[in-house]
Amino acid sequence: MYNAETTIAALSTPPGKGGVALIRMSGPRAIEIATRCFILRSDNPLSELPSRHAAYGDVIFEGAPIDDAIITVFRAPHSYTGEDTVEISCHGGILLTETVLAALFAAGAEQAEAGEFTRRAMLSGRLSLTEAEAIGNLLEAKSRAGIRLSAATARTRLSRELDELHNALLTLISSLYAKIDYPEEDLADLSNDEILFSLADITARADSLLATYRTGRAVAEGIPTVLCGAPNVGKSALYNVLCGEDLAIVTEHAGTTRDVLSSTVPLGSVMLRLSDTAGLRDATDPVERIGVDRSRTKMEEAELLLAVFDGSRPLTEEERELLAFLKTAAGCVVILQNKTDLAQVLSLDAFADFEHVLPISAKTGEGLDALSELITRLFTDEKIHLGEDAVIASARQFAALSRARDAICRARDAFACGLPADIASSDLEQGLAAFSELCGRTVSDEIISEIFRRFCVGK
Amino acid sequence: MYNAETTIAALSTPPGKGGVALIRMSGPRAIEIATRCFILRSDNPLSELPSRHAAYGDVIFEGAPIDDAIITVFRAPHSYTGEDTVEISCHGGILLTETVLAALFAAGAEQAEAGEFTRRAMLSGRLSLTEAEAIGNLLEAKSRAGIRLSAATARTRLSRELDELHNALLTLISSLYAKIDYPEEDLADLSNDEILFSLADITARADSLLATYRTGRAVAEGIPTVLCGAPNVGKSALYNVLCGEDLAIVTEHAGTTRDVLSSTVPLGSVMLRLSDTAGLRDATDPVERIGVDRSRTKMEEAELLLAVFDGSRPLTEEERELLAFLKTAAGCVVILQNKTDLAQVLSLDAFADFEHVLPISAKTGEGLDALSELITRLFTDEKIHLGEDAVIASARQFAALSRARDAICRARDAFACGLPADIASSDLEQGLAAFSELCGRTVSDEIISEIFRRFCVGK
Repeated sequence: MYNAETTIAALSTPPGKGGVALIRMSGPRAIEIATRCFILRSDNPLSELPSRHAAYGDVIFEGAPIDDAIITVFRAPHSYTGEDTVEISCHGGILLTETVLAALFAAGAEQAEAGEFTRRAMLSGRLSLTEAEAIGNLLEAKSRAGIRLSAATARTRLSRELDELHNALLTLISSLYAKIDYPEEDLADLSNDEILFSLADITARADSLLATYRTGRAVAEGIPTVLCGAPNVGKSALYNVLCGEDLAIVTEHAGTTRDVLSSTVPLGSVMLRLSDTAGLRDATDPVERIGVDRSRTKMEEAELLLAVFDGSRPLTEEERELLAFLKTAAGCVVILQNKTDLAQVLSLDAFADFEHVLPISAKTGEGLDALSELITRLFTDEKIHLGEDAVIASARQFAALSRARDAICRARDAFACGLPADIASSDLEQGLAAFSELCGRTVSDEIISEIFRRFCVGK
Repeated sequence: MYNAETTIAALSTPPGKGGVALIRMSGPRAIEIATRCFILRSDNPLSELPSRHAAYGDVIFEGAPIDDAIITVFRAPHSYTGEDTVEISCHGGILLTETVLAALFAAGAEQAEAGEFTRRAMLSGRLSLTEAEAIGNLLEAKSRAGIRLSAATARTRLSRELDELHNALLTLISSLYAKIDYPEEDLADLSNDEILFSLADITARADSLLATYRTGRAVAEGIPTVLCGAPNVGKSALYNVLCGEDLAIVTEHAGTTRDVLSSTVPLGSVMLRLSDTAGLRDATDPVERIGVDRSRTKMEEAELLLAVFDGSRPLTEEERELLAFLKTAAGCVVILQNKTDLAQVLSLDAFADFEHVLPISAKTGEGLDALSELITRLFTDEKIHLGEDAVIASARQFAALSRARDAICRARDAFACGLPADIASSDLEQGLAAFSELCGRTVSDEIISEIFRRFCVGK
């Protein structure tokens, strides 16, 4: 059991002027420090305030009351961090909030680091690492689907599922060790058939979880997407519509976009890691040339290619070359026949080889809902109920779970071939280590620090 | 008694990503709406949750849980607004917070306007208008003294003192009406001597309160202050030191500052409404000339003139003229002998006619503490205990109280001269009206709107 020695405090609400600010303090001395900085209007001692009861009183600093505020005490272990926690809801002035914090620091609290409350919650066993990651995603969520993905039920389910797999693996390992240590005595809890069945079951469950990452990644991290097309077909206008901002310079001159612009933007239930690219013509200007080269690389790496064509004019030779390239592309190609607001002359025959062709108008917004639905359908699994089902939502989780699964498969193969039990058990130990890392039991400080780095102070 | 028909909700913490966001909802349907959007983990109905008990549960939107959060119910009249109030402390993601609010709106809550919670508190009698103004000052406070000025004890005291004066006046008026209506029957509660004594007492108490405005204004609104001096004596450097920012361009060329820069900055316990000015030489450049003219106007209007001289060189003719001007200035003059970090050649004899002369160095910060103490001493009343004593802190309060006091003085004079009682009572009615306006009982919607305009949404 983790036991922090220090008591930390921080402003948990965003900085700035607001009606109310929430200051959170957690640690062994939280209630004692609060007692020295806060006097209840009821004149009762703060230490006798029932847990979770919001009481009115005054924050005291340098002997004088500086603000009237609401205080709530959450006693260990029934708090966010699992430690004694005090929350002070004071008036939201900028200097005022700093002064209330200064009162807590003067009485012995220390400034919390970014994510330190959540980190303590994890270290004291209130949260698993995957749950902490989900809370980080929740704070960053840019779509309703992103919010549902990380909602409490879903993050608890993932955590429980991983715990169950971890525990099933532990049981198997102890059975195998019994077989190794006392081969004659049949001390193992499980028969060989049962062990094989259990290994197959764990593998299948890990596979099911791994399969959710395609959806989890599309919703939380975003699909690597490239907007491509000949110059002046309206790529930048579409980029701006998707971003909801005027990020790309839109002009009527071909070749305006030289840099690869990038944004992570929500579209329907998914996020696009969207790159706008220079047109793919054979540029002679060296700077433009570099832009075109970068575009090709991006297109080869993309998982989704949104290829834009101008429906109001015939295809150019260059565009026919682009179509030929797209037929061989590794990523999923969606043809966007842009400018439906103008008279259409481009025949759909040109796109006969492509499964996904959509007429759109970046100018009027026509066809964008259909695009959103198409991409959501292509990149998410509709059988997954976001908000309820366990979903793998980060590259770290996917990598660790893949390692666990591979180790378990190796153990199953070894065991099925009748190889000595210590070979299988060694693989299972590796699988167990990967699970422990996944749940945060044995994960390195560096990984934890990296995960909490993106949390804000006060969380 | 005020009774709002609508139930309002808003984000009460500053917008932006934070660990926690607080959403407040107030009005007759607050608990009912919360019941439809929030399910307690304990499975108890929210309507049975005890007041002021922080409970854990899930916010529901469109049939699905979107966030786990802490909810606290404050039942009328024991809440900030005096109405049924619900506070939801949820995770602080930007979209997440918007979605939680959207859930409340979908269930029937309406978006609160800026300051509407505090306005409801006032209209339902939980706060007087002067208390609401003090809370506004608290949110804006830029100094510890400003925080203390508006602290709960002080704002309650002011409100009570004004209430007492208001009630004393009411008693007097009813006595006078009794005298007018039944002159023969001696029905009045008070004798003529008692009425005179009471009028004198109310006047004296109003005068005491009015006298606090000098301090209240210096602390809350700021002292109109001008930095003046010849070119290149270090005015802009001092301006920047006082502002804590690089606002004025500091160069070694004379006449760099052409515009009048203005900032409201804290210095010790007071605020300075500080203007940096062009040097006062006879500029020939027309643009610079305008700057110099503006400086003169500012200097004539200022209540505090910080006159900067360069101690490392003798006075110029122009500076002697400035000193002559300063001797006749209406405002309080403080001579700052700048550049103590260099060898001093300027004799203090030149400043013999001035009471306040301080050696300083804008470069090293030397002497700035002494300047802060001097100005605090000059502009605040040390007998006033900030944070405890009632202090008038706004021009509106001062103007209304002055009107009340003048009307009461007229009534006293009329009564003392033996003029008919209805003359005095008419004056007292005017005094009472001014008090009512001061406390917010009868104040116009325009004034209330002006006061709440500077509140943020969610307060």
